[in-house]
Amino acid sequence: MLDSLFKPRAVALIGASTKELSIGNVIIKNLRRFDYKGTIYPINPKAPEIRGIKAYPSILDVPGDVDVCHIVIPPEMVPQAVEDCGKKGVKNVIINTAGFKEMGAEGEALQNDFVERGKKFGVRIFGPNCQGIINTDPEFKAYCDFTFTYPKPGHISIVAQSGGVGAVIMQNFFDLDVGMRMYASNGNACDISIPEIIRYWGNDDETRVIVLYVESLDDPKYFMDVAYEVAAKKPILAMNAGRTEEGAKAATSHTGGLAGGKATDLIFRKTGILAFDDAQEMCQAAVAFASQPIPRGKRVGMITNTGGPAIIATDTLVEGGLEIPPLSERAEKVLKETMFASASINNPIDVVATAGAPQFRSAVDVMMDEEQIDSVYINFVTPPFVDCESVARELAEVSKHKRKPIICNYMTDKPQWLETTKILNEGGIPCYDFPGTAAKALVALSKYHELRSRAKGNVRNFRDVDKGKAEAIINGAEKSGIGILSASDVYNILDAYKIPSASWKIVSSTDNAVAAAESLGYPVVIKADSPKIIHKSDAGAVAVNLKNSDEVRRAATEMEKKLSGKKFNFFVQKFLTGGKELIIGAKAEANLGHLVMFGMGGIYVEILKDVSFELAPVTDTEANEMINSIKMAPLLKGVRGQKGIFIKGAVEILERISQLVSDVPAIQELDLNPLFAFEDKIVAVDARIKI
Amino acid sequence: MLDSLFKPRAVALIGASTKELSIGNVIIKNLRRFDYKGTIYPINPKAPEIRGIKAYPSILDVPGDVDVCHIVIPPEMVPQAVEDCGKKGVKNVIINTAGFKEMGAEGEALQNDFVERGKKFGVRIFGPNCQGIINTDPEFKAYCDFTFTYPKPGHISIVAQSGGVGAVIMQNFFDLDVGMRMYASNGNACDISIPEIIRYWGNDDETRVIVLYVESLDDPKYFMDVAYEVAAKKPILAMNAGRTEEGAKAATSHTGGLAGGKATDLIFRKTGILAFDDAQEMCQAAVAFASQPIPRGKRVGMITNTGGPAIIATDTLVEGGLEIPPLSERAEKVLKETMFASASINNPIDVVATAGAPQFRSAVDVMMDEEQIDSVYINFVTPPFVDCESVARELAEVSKHKRKPIICNYMTDKPQWLETTKILNEGGIPCYDFPGTAAKALVALSKYHELRSRAKGNVRNFRDVDKGKAEAIINGAEKSGIGILSASDVYNILDAYKIPSASWKIVSSTDNAVAAAESLGYPVVIKADSPKIIHKSDAGAVAVNLKNSDEVRRAATEMEKKLSGKKFNFFVQKFLTGGKELIIGAKAEANLGHLVMFGMGGIYVEILKDVSFELAPVTDTEANEMINSIKMAPLLKGVRGQKGIFIKGAVEILERISQLVSDVPAIQELDLNPLFAFEDKIVAVDARIKI
Repeated sequence: MLDSLFKPRAVALIGASTKELSIGNVIIKNLRRFDYKGTIYPINPKAPEIRGIKAYPSILDVPGDVDVCHIVIPPEMVPQAVEDCGKKGVKNVIINTAGFKEMGAEGEALQNDFVERGKKFGVRIFGPNCQGIINTDPEFKAYCDFTFTYPKPGHISIVAQSGGVGAVIMQNFFDLDVGMRMYASNGNACDISIPEIIRYWGNDDETRVIVLYVESLDDPKYFMDVAYEVAAKKPILAMNAGRTEEGAKAATSHTGGLAGGKATDLIFRKTGILAFDDAQEMCQAAVAFASQPIPRGKRVGMITNTGGPAIIATDTLVEGGLEIPPLSERAEKVLKETMFASASINNPIDVVATAGAPQFRSAVDVMMDEEQIDSVYINFVTPPFVDCESVARELAEVSKHKRKPIICNYMTDKPQWLETTKILNEGGIPCYDFPGTAAKALVALSKYHELRSRAKGNVRNFRDVDKGKAEAIINGAEKSGIGILSASDVYNILDAYKIPSASWKIVSSTDNAVAAAESLGYPVVIKADSPKIIHKSDAGAVAVNLKNSDEVRRAATEMEKKLSGKKFNFFVQKFLTGGKELIIGAKAEANLGHLVMFGMGGIYVEILKDVSFELAPVTDTEANEMINSIKMAPLLKGVRGQKGIFIKGAVEILERISQLVSDVPAIQELDLNPLFAFEDKIVAVDARIKI
Repeated sequence: MLDSLFKPRAVALIGASTKELSIGNVIIKNLRRFDYKGTIYPINPKAPEIRGIKAYPSILDVPGDVDVCHIVIPPEMVPQAVEDCGKKGVKNVIINTAGFKEMGAEGEALQNDFVERGKKFGVRIFGPNCQGIINTDPEFKAYCDFTFTYPKPGHISIVAQSGGVGAVIMQNFFDLDVGMRMYASNGNACDISIPEIIRYWGNDDETRVIVLYVESLDDPKYFMDVAYEVAAKKPILAMNAGRTEEGAKAATSHTGGLAGGKATDLIFRKTGILAFDDAQEMCQAAVAFASQPIPRGKRVGMITNTGGPAIIATDTLVEGGLEIPPLSERAEKVLKETMFASASINNPIDVVATAGAPQFRSAVDVMMDEEQIDSVYINFVTPPFVDCESVARELAEVSKHKRKPIICNYMTDKPQWLETTKILNEGGIPCYDFPGTAAKALVALSKYHELRSRAKGNVRNFRDVDKGKAEAIINGAEKSGIGILSASDVYNILDAYKIPSASWKIVSSTDNAVAAAESLGYPVVIKADSPKIIHKSDAGAVAVNLKNSDEVRRAATEMEKKLSGKKFNFFVQKFLTGGKELIIGAKAEANLGHLVMFGMGGIYVEILKDVSFELAPVTDTEANEMINSIKMAPLLKGVRGQKGIFIKGAVEILERISQLVSDVPAIQELDLNPLFAFEDKIVAVDARIKI
């Protein structure tokens, strides 16, 4: 556990400096300014004291035990410093110094050196090239970091691979007057990792929400294990960083891990982490998560004392998938008694600008009592002619029972309405400056409800497959140094996993090709099958829609002529037409497993990029979701009186492909493109496997 | 002109009150607190003074001239007050009181009453049911409003139909320490209208940007005239309010105008107003517009002193359509000399956290000099070990030349970096709290460049049309009280406007139907044509794909049997198949003209809602854009070796339809659904006109 890192009783600093504009000075200043409860040991071979604290020439001279030792000296001196820390029995070092793995081979060697020494002595290493940690717990007040925000205690913990993003997030909570629990930004993360920190916070009762910024995952499987475990206990909110190609390139440029894009997104969704495209939205959602219960559904009750912001909020809520249902007759009856004559007494309830505490209280009570309302959105502008403090008091009173989440767009000048602001704040009501911003926070709460209550489904285990055969084919190809499998290998593997394809035969002569065609039935397609012929169409190695033996013979003879000198077989396959074109594929991601893809083929994938992804192993629920989530899904299910395709068949193929790539992970890429989908069957008519 | 409203030398207040929590007191307080430069005349029949200012029993007792008189007394007393103001020679009244048109018939009558009286005396009316106006001009400091934000002078002017939204926007600029020029929220807008205010600000040199919130347009054509005129002079930013069905419903519930949704969006785009879905994004963009030049293109140069925020910014910029191109060799050469060894010297330039003024200056100079860079995005975190004030000074120095827009994600704790913040602020560099937020502001600047530099194109005027014939048909139908035109009327109108359709004949007997089919050529479709048979398919009034005379005779006979008793003709038309299905339509909007629609028919419109809209008259450029902007456009242009459709033909049909509905505005709805599009022709095969 990381107790000695986040709850240090003594902090040392190798490289403590008397120079004010230096990291070695700023960290000491931060520890003091944050009122750190433990002992500080500046280490400096020359200075007798730093910022009035006695300094020691070496970590080995320090009289007491040391839980955390910062190292802020030049890179080449770091390995020896870690060794010294080991000898001293320091539990953790935070290496703020940069210039290691992120700078190339030489730096990496240095990093490996101190990692080894750390291991030898059992010293845990945080960093290098990092900011450090903060713990606002009043018992510790540990500020082992050179950044500049001094947060008050709270329930949000932040872990960020990038110190810059971590600082932005922490500062935003500070600006919003929202407390923070712990903070960690561990840069190169050579030892103590982000998943390890998340797991630690999973067991920290005071951490109610974890905010995560990660650009790349060194060990995606470990990350997933931890994410499953912790996300089951408390919300984890994360940025989708590097989701554009350019952004991902920027992210990978200084990391070796799995960066950005599709895979990270899928990992988040699969493990129950709520992902955001915008850091501000994520922060503002975190504020709501830290104090509000999760709504049980999508139905919002809106209360407003001004018209326009209700329109803006409605747009944003509806676009976010929420509903603003009408209220019951019972509710209307109550409101008719309590509201002003000019009020609007359905949903939204417009209490009007002159509404005071009784009107607001009645409106919010009604929303709490309505069965068909899951959450409450309030627009509260502070009119100078209304006793706003009383209004705030009523809202805070209702909020404290936490029956349903309350989100407030609070439109005011805070310095003028200081007391009102304080009452709302202490009542734990998340307040936002814009109707859309408040609405987005509520959308996030609701999306989280959906994410958490989503049935995971089951991974089907098909026992009718022949794993040994598939493995043998792949092993054989690997031994022969083949990258792209031959058609016969591909279709044999599909057959071994009972993945339906157009019937086929593999033969070695023109005569046998004709015989094969006769037995398969016309029309057929024939291909010159050899791992050496990659771009078959260009090479003249494909002839489609051959309708009789003459056409087959002619095509086969021509192929032999064109490809003379190359050794190949004839792959003869039933030529199918009609049906709707589908694509199913799988692709290996380093250290993670496979992404499985589903889409509509032809112009749909080309023009609309109409595809969906999941991480293998794909459950039955996920396979169905993959199909339902493409834009053209209604076409597959049947529109305009047309019958749909054999959805169950598509689900099963996705499950079987998922099992195949999980059983035989050497498969790097697999494409069934296209499959033809009919009402009663789906068959692959072209397939490709790369190992 | 509205000078006397926005630059009043004397303000009176009918309904001035000694009660602190009242509008009649708050407005006096605001005028005083804002240091209003003119004279204040509280009107109160009893109190000798209000807040220490001499009060008068009636407006008629006021000794001096009055430019603006607030009216905050109960609704039923307002008409007499307006009459009194007229007698006194008051130039403008601001009626803050609510309870008029927005409350139903009785209120509307009261409103009409005082509008009449105002007209009689030449008193301009602002409101009712409104906040009022603010002018920060140091010469006036007019705060004729009961809201609570006291902005400093600046260059952004705000007009909002909703006072609540206006207050949110104004307060946000205040919180951002950004100045404001003028403010207006005119509620019911019974006389002085939003377009009139926009036109006034168009001529106000100190207003550099106009921020607009409008929920509904009473007179869309007038609005468009003004918007064209003013948007050509300065940026207008507007909220897209009521863009969901639910939001639009909320907006129309208390207005009678054209609310939200598609039409407003089209008006904004056509007139050159930049529209936003999010109010916060709009405000943050306005800050950039107020101080920065418009970029000449999409190419961003990024400078960063921290890694993560550069990734987030990259994602947001790229998603917004911007590019981050590599720098020239020349630039790299300069940067190699000026940057630290650990810096990254292409785009983004990562100056690294330890960078000081010389590094930042060189980086920003390089971006200014690079020809392939149109704007500069800066991530500036304030490290406690760097002289940030010097960095800020360099940035401000470069910014003041306004060669290219600079946007800054400024990551700091402002109270600690007060001087740095001040330098950036005075340097006019727009600073934001999040990388994504800053990036979105830059995206908005770039989108505005695109909007303004977009070629409008020309409205083609087809002289080969027969307007008289179309008008005669519509007039005839109107006289007969027909709502849905008969097929022969519809196709005669299409023919009059040379809109190609499948060839057709109208006949009155079975024999003639057969003869018509023979002359058109098989296959044909026949329909029982009568304005009384609306749902033809359901009524058995349509028979398609008739291949010979027997089939035509049988179908016609059957129709006569089914529809016996009804008077109808046979509409016989060539039955076409193949081709890609298109939809073209037009729909009248009250006081505005017609929306013209284009889309792909069949499953595409059904599943993907793949349609685009424009306001008639549609220019050639716009017609092309309509076609290019649908998702399936590549299919129309040709993909996968398939030839595309006759695009020019589609453009011309859109132009002819636009001319038709502009020439004959009585057409309420027109649908060509479907048209069949081939390589060399496009023909309507079904058409409908509603008047």
